[in-house]
Amino acid sequence: MRQDYLDDYFTFLRFPSISTDDAYTEKLAECAHWLVKKLKGIGLTTELVSTPGHPVVWARNKHQPGRKTVMIYGHYDVQPPDPLELWESPPFDPVLKNGYVFARGATDNKGQILAHILGLQETIAEQGDLPVNLHLVIEGEEEIGSGNLPGFLEKHRDSLGCDVVVVSDTGMIARGVPTLSYGLRGVTALELKVTGAKMDLHSGVFGGAVANSVTALARLLATLHDANGRVAIEGFYDDVKPLEDWEREAWRKLPIDGDKEILTETGSPALFGEEGYSTLERLWARPTAEINGIGGGYQGKGTKTVIASHAMAKLTFRLVPNQDGDKILQLAHKHLEKNLPPGVTMEITDGHSGPWYLTDPHSAFGEAAQSALKGAFKKDVALIREGGSIPIVSQFRDILGVETLLLGLAQADCRAHSPNENFPLENLEVGIKMNKAILAELAR
Amino acid sequence: MRQDYLDDYFTFLRFPSISTDDAYTEKLAECAHWLVKKLKGIGLTTELVSTPGHPVVWARNKHQPGRKTVMIYGHYDVQPPDPLELWESPPFDPVLKNGYVFARGATDNKGQILAHILGLQETIAEQGDLPVNLHLVIEGEEEIGSGNLPGFLEKHRDSLGCDVVVVSDTGMIARGVPTLSYGLRGVTALELKVTGAKMDLHSGVFGGAVANSVTALARLLATLHDANGRVAIEGFYDDVKPLEDWEREAWRKLPIDGDKEILTETGSPALFGEEGYSTLERLWARPTAEINGIGGGYQGKGTKTVIASHAMAKLTFRLVPNQDGDKILQLAHKHLEKNLPPGVTMEITDGHSGPWYLTDPHSAFGEAAQSALKGAFKKDVALIREGGSIPIVSQFRDILGVETLLLGLAQADCRAHSPNENFPLENLEVGIKMNKAILAELAR
Repeated sequence: MRQDYLDDYFTFLRFPSISTDDAYTEKLAECAHWLVKKLKGIGLTTELVSTPGHPVVWARNKHQPGRKTVMIYGHYDVQPPDPLELWESPPFDPVLKNGYVFARGATDNKGQILAHILGLQETIAEQGDLPVNLHLVIEGEEEIGSGNLPGFLEKHRDSLGCDVVVVSDTGMIARGVPTLSYGLRGVTALELKVTGAKMDLHSGVFGGAVANSVTALARLLATLHDANGRVAIEGFYDDVKPLEDWEREAWRKLPIDGDKEILTETGSPALFGEEGYSTLERLWARPTAEINGIGGGYQGKGTKTVIASHAMAKLTFRLVPNQDGDKILQLAHKHLEKNLPPGVTMEITDGHSGPWYLTDPHSAFGEAAQSALKGAFKKDVALIREGGSIPIVSQFRDILGVETLLLGLAQADCRAHSPNENFPLENLEVGIKMNKAILAELAR
Repeated sequence: MRQDYLDDYFTFLRFPSISTDDAYTEKLAECAHWLVKKLKGIGLTTELVSTPGHPVVWARNKHQPGRKTVMIYGHYDVQPPDPLELWESPPFDPVLKNGYVFARGATDNKGQILAHILGLQETIAEQGDLPVNLHLVIEGEEEIGSGNLPGFLEKHRDSLGCDVVVVSDTGMIARGVPTLSYGLRGVTALELKVTGAKMDLHSGVFGGAVANSVTALARLLATLHDANGRVAIEGFYDDVKPLEDWEREAWRKLPIDGDKEILTETGSPALFGEEGYSTLERLWARPTAEINGIGGGYQGKGTKTVIASHAMAKLTFRLVPNQDGDKILQLAHKHLEKNLPPGVTMEITDGHSGPWYLTDPHSAFGEAAQSALKGAFKKDVALIREGGSIPIVSQFRDILGVETLLLGLAQADCRAHSPNENFPLENLEVGIKMNKAILAELAR
């Protein structure tokens, strides 16, 4: 690794660009300014675009007619580092140890976006220009929901016109295995509140004659699944697109043992999920109904003999193609209303929805991405979906009308969002190669 | 009402004798000293007995062979007054309004125990002595579980020998209706913790492949009852003594509409309970399984897409004759273990138990109590049980070997434990008469 690359990496990592904490607003601005200077330095026209939140860094080469236009997207903001006491070295004082760089943001997303920047730098140095028209968009609010990115995209929709988006902010299936994520689950949320008596009651004085809101809530939530883990809401699976044969086949052949990985990573006593699907299929291609939180009555030490007036639960549903978030919420409402036990009332509040994403890894762009990955890593490409949601990918599709290639460089042991986040220098190096290769492939 | 009686009452109420808060320890001592002085003043030999907690006030007349020995029990400690903002007058600055005295403790238990004290005072003033040998025991820890009372009873078991205990710390079925409570439900408790993954998981990344601890807990808790509100734990009802015909008959004839009262008091949208029993039967003579608290995952504002590592619930079971707390806990363990959903583990921690109480209202002492009540109130006596638990009553039986007569003076609208606690002066007056009558009846 060239010393000047390492210097850039460490400088980038030293900015505590924690977007969720107002105390760091100035640090985010400093980090963005450093990016602007760096990108101008490698020959890109770069501006800092202010938003109601943290600014967006937007860099371009000189666009020429007849070339493909590619947007590379990343973010310079990071998660808070706490709990600080679990870090073996200070989170914003990067150290290189046995080939790994430890710092907050080392992987997510500074390491990954820097690989792209350095790839662009090398290509321009070697060839005087890039083989494509480039938009490089690096935002400062990804870790807090990218609230101002849609506004930026809409405002500059015409200038930002492009053929495809490249994002390196997802995972690799295993060390050294190039990975193309072509699908993401969506999500929709609701909160429910079950109310019995108008105040908390003494469970001795009143117990037995009126419904207990916590008991009613538990009975209601127990109807969400059947005993085998399948969601029991009528119509829930109606719009689910079955897995393609090639997907089941490809996932079966992945160089990982999904069952073992998930057991080890979670520490759960056993796997549990919908019958008829493998662990990876359950995670990547099947929808879920999860209770994310529940609360009611006395939760302190010891006993309080109370019948709680109300109890609440927070639910999210992970969505897969071709489920519609609004329709799923309607079905959920219907199910909850139908199964509400007697003696209580219920209020449901809907939360935010984000759609699923699915693109074709065998499209022309998908094949280009696969070739680039294979060339950079010298290994067969793993084609996967992911269980989480990345709302911006749908925004690129909805606002700009383009597909996104998710070429992740994060490994499960990189500890993104956790103490001792790290990034292997080999991934930074291969990421630089990948950037050069993907632009070359897309230019074909 | 004599002015000196009112003065005593207001003085008693002005002590903020909040036993649960260490900041008031000195105030409890001052209150106890005032009682000692008052009781000495009416001619009783009185001592303050220290305990590891707040002291016990113990007063006696000169005992004479051949007379019945009666213990009157009460407490001088009170519940905290908060939320303070809901009081219409300061909780420790009593006011008399339309025949009602408003203050914390006005009913529970200062009003009720003062009725006994003033009854004793009148009898001694009129007759020079009481018709029975008396122990008056007024403790300072009833509102925090009477933790040191058993020790006091055991230490002074021989001196405290008596034939029967009289307690006025229960309720009247309706205004002006003399009420003898001859049964109480017991209680036993457990807490359970269900654990899935070893840490909270991202519900997108892991949802669908491992069990959700909150979902598993809800499914488990939903097995506690059948759809009609009957406890579904195998063997739960095996030892339940059926209601006597005379009890069902007597309760049906009580001058209250149990359904309407409970609906009004609780504000519940509907009654709900075990089929085949009236509301009063459900409350007084049927056992329950109640979830007093539940918690797991994210309970803050908005959404957090988390699969909680663990979730917990607190359960209490109300017990009736002849259920045994330990046996019920064993049956509950068995049920919970049998119904635990897959993919999670469970820990159960047992809590404290208190036995049910049942005495015969038609025994000689019971008949004496009925005569006294009828004489004081000039109305037929309501024979009832209560849904709550009063552990000391079982301790009187276990340690002293005697039965307890529960002659309550509290009305449902007296707001014991709530803001604007109050006591009608007519109940103080009738309580004085009742005290004189019960001692006379017991002396026969």
